[in-house]
Amino acid sequence: MRVGILTIGNELTTGRIQDTNTAYLAGELASRTYEVSASMAVGDSQSAIKGGLDFLLPLSNAVIVTGGLGPTADDITTECIAKAFGLKLYLDEKALQVIKDRFERFKIRWSDNNAKQATFPKGAQPIPNPVGTAWGYALKRNRKIIIVVPGVPREVRKIFPEGVLPILEKASGRKKVVVLTKTVKLFGLAEALVDDALSDVVYDRKTLSIGFYPRFPENHIVLTARDTERKRAQKNLDDVRKKIEERLRKYIFGYDNDTLEGIVGALLTERKLTLAVAESLTGGLITDRITNVPGSSQYFERGVVSYSNRSKTDLLDVPEHTLEEFGSVSETTATLMAEGVRRMAKTDLGLSTTGIACPTGGTERKPVGTVFIAVTDGRRRVCRDFQFRWDRRRIKEITSQWALEMLRQFILGLE
Amino acid sequence: MRVGILTIGNELTTGRIQDTNTAYLAGELASRTYEVSASMAVGDSQSAIKGGLDFLLPLSNAVIVTGGLGPTADDITTECIAKAFGLKLYLDEKALQVIKDRFERFKIRWSDNNAKQATFPKGAQPIPNPVGTAWGYALKRNRKIIIVVPGVPREVRKIFPEGVLPILEKASGRKKVVVLTKTVKLFGLAEALVDDALSDVVYDRKTLSIGFYPRFPENHIVLTARDTERKRAQKNLDDVRKKIEERLRKYIFGYDNDTLEGIVGALLTERKLTLAVAESLTGGLITDRITNVPGSSQYFERGVVSYSNRSKTDLLDVPEHTLEEFGSVSETTATLMAEGVRRMAKTDLGLSTTGIACPTGGTERKPVGTVFIAVTDGRRRVCRDFQFRWDRRRIKEITSQWALEMLRQFILGLE
Repeated sequence: MRVGILTIGNELTTGRIQDTNTAYLAGELASRTYEVSASMAVGDSQSAIKGGLDFLLPLSNAVIVTGGLGPTADDITTECIAKAFGLKLYLDEKALQVIKDRFERFKIRWSDNNAKQATFPKGAQPIPNPVGTAWGYALKRNRKIIIVVPGVPREVRKIFPEGVLPILEKASGRKKVVVLTKTVKLFGLAEALVDDALSDVVYDRKTLSIGFYPRFPENHIVLTARDTERKRAQKNLDDVRKKIEERLRKYIFGYDNDTLEGIVGALLTERKLTLAVAESLTGGLITDRITNVPGSSQYFERGVVSYSNRSKTDLLDVPEHTLEEFGSVSETTATLMAEGVRRMAKTDLGLSTTGIACPTGGTERKPVGTVFIAVTDGRRRVCRDFQFRWDRRRIKEITSQWALEMLRQFILGLE
Repeated sequence: MRVGILTIGNELTTGRIQDTNTAYLAGELASRTYEVSASMAVGDSQSAIKGGLDFLLPLSNAVIVTGGLGPTADDITTECIAKAFGLKLYLDEKALQVIKDRFERFKIRWSDNNAKQATFPKGAQPIPNPVGTAWGYALKRNRKIIIVVPGVPREVRKIFPEGVLPILEKASGRKKVVVLTKTVKLFGLAEALVDDALSDVVYDRKTLSIGFYPRFPENHIVLTARDTERKRAQKNLDDVRKKIEERLRKYIFGYDNDTLEGIVGALLTERKLTLAVAESLTGGLITDRITNVPGSSQYFERGVVSYSNRSKTDLLDVPEHTLEEFGSVSETTATLMAEGVRRMAKTDLGLSTTGIACPTGGTERKPVGTVFIAVTDGRRRVCRDFQFRWDRRRIKEITSQWALEMLRQFILGLE
């Protein structure tokens, strides 16, 4: 079943409000195997609304329309739809009473323009609004369904599952299809090379799709399997996932809702390891990410943002002469920072970053984007240097990602 | 001049990605008095892309198409557009070289599928991409302009003003209108109260518009003045800005591209003050924000993320008995943390946060969302307590915002 989405409102065509309804509806529909034919946003005008319907209806079995159902003069959706199909309007007394009761319950003064919210094209089936005053409705014309709901995102999120979905499900009447998805999350391999690696994966395009989504600094591969039988869908999904893992295992750090900091946190918890972090370049971004994970206080002991040389000496025990001889951005300093923070915090692991992100801080030998990351457990120590080419913020982001990835590899003994 | 927007990608019609390009483009176009005829999102399919163009072109003088220009097999926009207009494709050697150079400069391995990003329909005018590898292009057919750009939001935000707008401006050939905008940034007043405060501001709606954009945890007011004369537009803008300042001065921390961390950084620089930060709850988010500002090493000495009690004692000199008596989340501890980090770092100012963001960490007396923020210069000390009601991440975000705001007020003597 193909569903079109039409969002209405000048606030959308002027960019004043970011439309979130389309993405919400498209996601909900796709996860239930409805195909979204197209989505459109048009302004509050009769011709634009009619034009939108004229375009979407031939492509779709149903069209969901959001917005323009409020009480004010620029809310013209219902009027336009009635006109487009040559229908008269009627006031639904039952809906009107529910809306009036709502006003009373919330002690809002009633004004007569609110009756508009209980007015529908003749033949429409009203859809109650449990969280607002503008009701929606569904209309069948020429074997197509037009479903109209208010545009307030919060109301859409309530009316869609409760009022809209049952109508679509009844109308589609098809055999139930199971949809399973799996997101594979990678880091450390360029987008085009991920694509290359996937190019010879053989799979049935009718029952499975592979989507590729770069999410700086990560790359996400999304597998979606559809089948009338859950077991077959699951097997299909697992088979393709394994093929991808064979090709890209080294770069896969997690699945679905995993975050790199969450994966690292789970590893630390599982192995009962504790961690301390010394950041210069990343300025706290690594520990910010680490502490986004609930329960991180179990393994994360402390972080030090040693921006000044003195703080590197005070808090990390990096000797002054090292800073003088090698500079604060050097392999020696990075390694001593990781060792120092580990020793002073008495943790199992120490992690550090140092580098140059400032437009003016670079030199010929150490240009902007020079980064050192070190990790140690007191016996083994790993230090890598990088040369990044982004702006200050992106250099911080990719450095924090590499630091967490190096820590993951260190714990797993992969490096 | 009427402009249509067509965004392409299965990730949009399946709701996997929230489309932000449409709102950006619509806002930019509207602020320059172009009318957006309609916007649409379609999947990566020949018929959907052709359908979208067939719908938008009759309504519009120009259509901006975004997405589907990458190197991978599901990037089919250019192929579809060429087919739709019966045009052949050609490889632009100049663009190819620029893209290859970019790969080399960033040390990314070249693979031949990237040549697709320098392939255009015959007759198209290539539009360089200064921040990515997929070039855009413009095509004139039947007195309409089709402008195609990549879908990466960051690239759209660069290519639109530099490559797209000049083409639209040349084509529209209308009397030049000066458009001036001013964004006023507020923090600390609820959305509805900002709206209330603005309700009696009198202004000419024909030449000025006021937009209101909640950007958690900030609120932004955007003034846009349009006039054939720059001087008049500027005066109009200034007059309304002053009216807003009269009503909301207390909550305004900056304008346009200002960030709160940038404003605080400028204040510290100007007054030659240095800063050290001790974070518990915020886990490094405050110093991450502070160090996003180029030049922050001039005033930011160190940060300490004292997640464990021992680190509070070691690095901040908070006595163990204080932690036992008052708890790590208390006014006393917050104040001692700010004083301790300041003393140990020998800076002018000390800032601290402590609180409970963990779903399981709350108690009846100190529920989840309890936060203390302290700031001191060694003589004055200010500590405020808060009770926030969001999730872990939002509690961290609003706490970092309040911490920076309290620091700003402290420096300015406003508290």
